[in-house]
Parts: sequence; structure tokens; C-alpha cells
Amino acid sequence: MTSISETGEFGLIHHLTDNIELKNTSSIKGVGDDAAVLDYKNKQILVTTDVLLEGIHFDLVYTPLKHLGYKAAIVNFSDIYAMNGQPKQILVTLGISKRMSVESVDDLYSGILLACEQYGVDLVGGDTSASYTGLTISITCIGEADKDKVVYRNGAKENDLICVSGDLGAAYMGLQLLEREKAVYLNADEKDAIQPDFASKEYILERQLKPEARKDVIAILAEKGIVPTSMIDVSDGLSSELLHLCEQSKKGCRVYEEKIPIDYQTATMAEEFNMNLTTAALNGGEDYELLFTVPLDRYDEVKDIEEIKVIGHITSPEQGACLVTRDGQEFKLKAQGWNSFE
Amino acid sequence: MTSISETGEFGLIHHLTDNIELKNTSSIKGVGDDAAVLDYKNKQILVTTDVLLEGIHFDLVYTPLKHLGYKAAIVNFSDIYAMNGQPKQILVTLGISKRMSVESVDDLYSGILLACEQYGVDLVGGDTSASYTGLTISITCIGEADKDKVVYRNGAKENDLICVSGDLGAAYMGLQLLEREKAVYLNADEKDAIQPDFASKEYILERQLKPEARKDVIAILAEKGIVPTSMIDVSDGLSSELLHLCEQSKKGCRVYEEKIPIDYQTATMAEEFNMNLTTAALNGGEDYELLFTVPLDRYDEVKDIEEIKVIGHITSPEQGACLVTRDGQEFKLKAQGWNSFE
Repeated sequence: MTSISETGEFGLIHHLTDNIELKNTSSIKGVGDDAAVLDYKNKQILVTTDVLLEGIHFDLVYTPLKHLGYKAAIVNFSDIYAMNGQPKQILVTLGISKRMSVESVDDLYSGILLACEQYGVDLVGGDTSASYTGLTISITCIGEADKDKVVYRNGAKENDLICVSGDLGAAYMGLQLLEREKAVYLNADEKDAIQPDFASKEYILERQLKPEARKDVIAILAEKGIVPTSMIDVSDGLSSELLHLCEQSKKGCRVYEEKIPIDYQTATMAEEFNMNLTTAALNGGEDYELLFTVPLDRYDEVKDIEEIKVIGHITSPEQGACLVTRDGQEFKLKAQGWNSFE
Repeated sequence: MTSISETGEFGLIHHLTDNIELKNTSSIKGVGDDAAVLDYKNKQILVTTDVLLEGIHFDLVYTPLKHLGYKAAIVNFSDIYAMNGQPKQILVTLGISKRMSVESVDDLYSGILLACEQYGVDLVGGDTSASYTGLTISITCIGEADKDKVVYRNGAKENDLICVSGDLGAAYMGLQLLEREKAVYLNADEKDAIQPDFASKEYILERQLKPEARKDVIAILAEKGIVPTSMIDVSDGLSSELLHLCEQSKKGCRVYEEKIPIDYQTATMAEEFNMNLTTAALNGGEDYELLFTVPLDRYDEVKDIEEIKVIGHITSPEQGACLVTRDGQEFKLKAQGWNSFE
């Protein structure tokens, strides 16, 4: 293993970035100057940033560094897709604990670069420093959209259909499983004998450790000529995101419990943990699915899209934001989404 | 004092950002959606990012939070000016240690917003999280420049004049002074009786705690129609930055010790510490001055600019990068600039 103090800051940056090739025409100059230079012609520019902090957002006990790098990039791409845009560049800032080796940083970086390759994004800059404490990964993503195609959170209209891609709650159940197996391991007398029990749990683990962003859904909508009236990505839980859309659009909503898409593995895991499945789907978070609204007259088109489920509709603000349960009861939605300060 | 766990993550973000007004025409949508939306028309876009980590880049014992916020923004603006651009937007990512109060975060944010106001920059987004460890401040700055005005590090030509703005080594001597007074305080038996001795040291302290970026120098050059052939900002020390310019331009340089601009307070402080003044100016860092090259035939114009000193010239690569001392000796420049991994 190579110590970073051997390569130094500039040596490490050279090592990590020397082989990066820029592929997007909007990337004029990448790593190696005071700033990256981009040219977006007449497109609008989207910028978002997300930080992952050791101990708060991830646990290196069960998170492979390559997966962590991949996820750190994906969560940013997801924010750009949620504006109906295309991610094009990222800047990667790392605070690296001094106990990490050059090889570990390579693993982390290889995950970031893999995500870039899969999603057609260029790594154009960043900052790298030692950290006295844990690992810090802060990524800024820049993307583009045609001026008339940018979708905000505030455009939902009464009677619009509420749609969500994929399924919900799986990443959260994956996290519960990982935490359980970690506890089993830490409490075991003979640690070498411990094998985590992950059989037929692959999907929920992958949703937690190596999520994807819904580039495909944005492409399908574009192909069908559908521009959502409002959109957000599901990172803090469906409840929290629905409240954001309603608050910013100054509307209410009705969402139907029976319509919320949930994977079989998520359901069996919730049963194993004796947890309420709908609560997991509403409040779990880290799904990185797209939640959006479309006018009612697009129903025939969206109902046939396999990747999308209609889960409810937008109402007047007076009606509030409610979940309608299987037995027809109405409950006010609460933002029980994740709060790192608690 | 208000605990952040009371306001929560969304409450804190609302508290910090609700009163922000966007002033630049390129800022279409700021805080509050999945991404900020910008429109730069036919300008090129500059993007840079810098992270400040507690214990590595700053010490809260002697760094007021408002100054720290100001500096965190300034170091980013400086990178944009070093491309001959204008900073326009920032995204602010904070990892906040749980022991910090809402009022402390307000202080930090007020410094960031003051810098934005002074330099005409909009705060358009970011990410806010609790941190298990120290305070983390990661800022991304976006700026603009006309396509034909962007100045890279790689354009220096033989015989170009090497110019630097302001003076060097002051921020480094300010840091030495703060570290000395901290040690005096920590070693004192009666801490209440300790008063740090900062008389006639105001300039070097300000250079360390509340640096400025050279917006004025970029404006003067533009006014005179001077586009530097290469440029970089002095953050890691003059030596290190000269080597960057030479390496990327594939050239050598001669810089004259007697020409390096140094303030009187920097000189007296170096004497008090029995340190070599030229070494402090060459390797100190955190000056945030602009180092740039201009064609020889612009000499008459640059010599009359008070904010700029000509300190040497560019040579062929075979001659290497050298410092010529007062007694005419030549020494190869070494990058002894700051490395956080050491």
C-alpha cells in the first residue's frame, strides 16, 4: 500500500486525473488550471452539489469504496435529471483521512469515473486535501437543458397526475439489512466465522450500495414529448418530496397507498424486520427515483410506460397533502425524511 | 444559543437562505430546487471549487467564523479572476459539527454573503449536513468570461514579463503570529490575563484572516486592453505557482529576489521570527495575488500600474526556473508550497 504523504497533494492529483479524457463538446478545459472552462452555447446551465460525510452518510464497514464513489456521482446526476436536464461535468472534492492509501483513493475514484462513463459525464476539476477526521466527498455537477424544457418543483397544477419511476423503499431496507449484519458481526465472538446472510437480498443491497439515476426515464419522456409540470428526485423519502412539490406549487395532493410501487424483496425484508412497508416506502429515502406531475390528458401515454406508475393526483391547496390508505382512510403526509442533525 | 437539532436540516437551510436575492442576470433560479439554473448566453463558463477543513486549513481558536466564511468565498473568486473571468454564482456546502449553534452558522454564512455582496456574486445553492467531526466548508464558484479573453496557465511565451499584484508573504507571517500567540495563550497559567500582542501587525493579520481577491487588477488590465498570456493565483506560494506556469507553458523563468514585492510588516515580522524573508515570500502561500505574464512590448503600460510589479521574465525551457538573488547568484526554484498530506 502506498501512503499519500509519499505522492503528496499534486502527485496524487496527477495520479488520479492524468488519464482523464474529455468527451463532451461543452467541456473546453478540465483538470489542471485555476478553473474548468465550459461552453454551453445557448443552453441553460444546471448546477447542483451533494456532500457525503463518513459516519453521517456512509459507513466504510460495509460500503466498498468503488460503490461509494459511484453513488456519490449518481446522487448528483439524479438532481440534474430531476430538472429534466442532462449531466455533463462534475467537480470532485475529497477530504481524505490520512490513514487511507493511494490504492483506496484509486478505488473511490474508479467508482466516480465509472459513473461518469456510464452517464456520459466529464470529470473536469475538484479539490483534494488531507482530512484530520473522516472521509469527505463533495461533488458538484453541471448539466444542461433547453431553456423551455427545464422542470422546476413549482409547476404542478390541479388535477395533474402524480407519477413516480421504479419502486420505493428498497434502498432503506437494504440499509437496515446492512446495519443488522454489521451488528451481528460486531457482537460475534469468532468474527472469522461470520458470513453475512445476503441470499435473495441482492436487489435491496444494490439499491443502497450502487443506486442508479433515471436517465432512461428522462429519455422516455423526451421521446414521447412529455414535459412534466413539476419534478423532484426522491432522496429524502416520498412523503418529504411530495410535500416539497405541493408547497412550492402551492397545491395539495392525494396519493394512494395501493399504487405505491414496491419491490418484492423490499416487502419480504420489511416483514422480516416487522416494519410497516408503506412507512418504509414513504419515508425511507435514497431511492433516487423521479417524482413528477403531468397534465391529466397525458394519462393514456404515461399508463403504458413500464418504468412509471401513477400514484395519485394534485388537488387544491385547501385539501392538503394526503395519503389514502387501502381501506379508504386519509392521513396527512408528514416529512419524516432523513435529518442528519437529529 | 439555538441548537441545530431544533431547526433541523430544512429549517436551517430556510433560515440561512430565505432572504437571499439574486442580482446577476445569469442567475435564473437559486436555492430551493434540485439544481440552480443559470443562463450565460454566449459567454464561456468557468467553474472552480475549494474546500476548507477544520484542523487542516483553519483553526477556530483564532479564526472568527465570519472571517472564515468570507475567506472561503474569496479563495474561490480568486480562482475565477485567475482565468481573467468574473465570478457570478457560488454553491455552499457545509458539514457542520453538532456542537455548533445556529448563531455560529449565521456568523459563518454572514461572512460568505458579505463576500458575495462585495464581489457581485449570487449564492444559488449548496448542501448542508451535520458532521461527526470538524467543520467542513466546500464552495463551488461559477464565473464567466468572453471566449477570447479566458487566460490559461499554458500561454507564456519567451521574453514575456512576469508580473505579480500586491505583495507576498504577508498571510504566511500573519499565520506565524497567530500560531505564536495561540501557543502563549495555551501555555499561560492565568489565561484571562493574556492579551495577544497584535499592535502594528494589522496588515499581516488581515491578509491571513480576511484576504481579498484581485477583482481590481482584472479591471485595470481590461481597461488597458491587456490580456495576459498566462495567469494563476498565488495560493500555494510564488515558487510553486511559477513552476506551474513554466511547466504548463513549457518554458523557464528568471525571477529577481530584489523585485519581489514585500510589505514592511511582513519584513519586520520575519525579522522578529528570525526567518528568511525571501523564503517566506516564495513559499508562504495564501496571498491570493495574481501572477501573470504579458508580452514584453506591454512594459510601458504595466510599469505604471501601482498594483502590479514586474518581477522577472520567461525564458526558454532549457534555462529552467530560477531565482536570481540580490548578489547575482541563481537558484533553481523548488515547489515547497503547502502540502496538506505531510
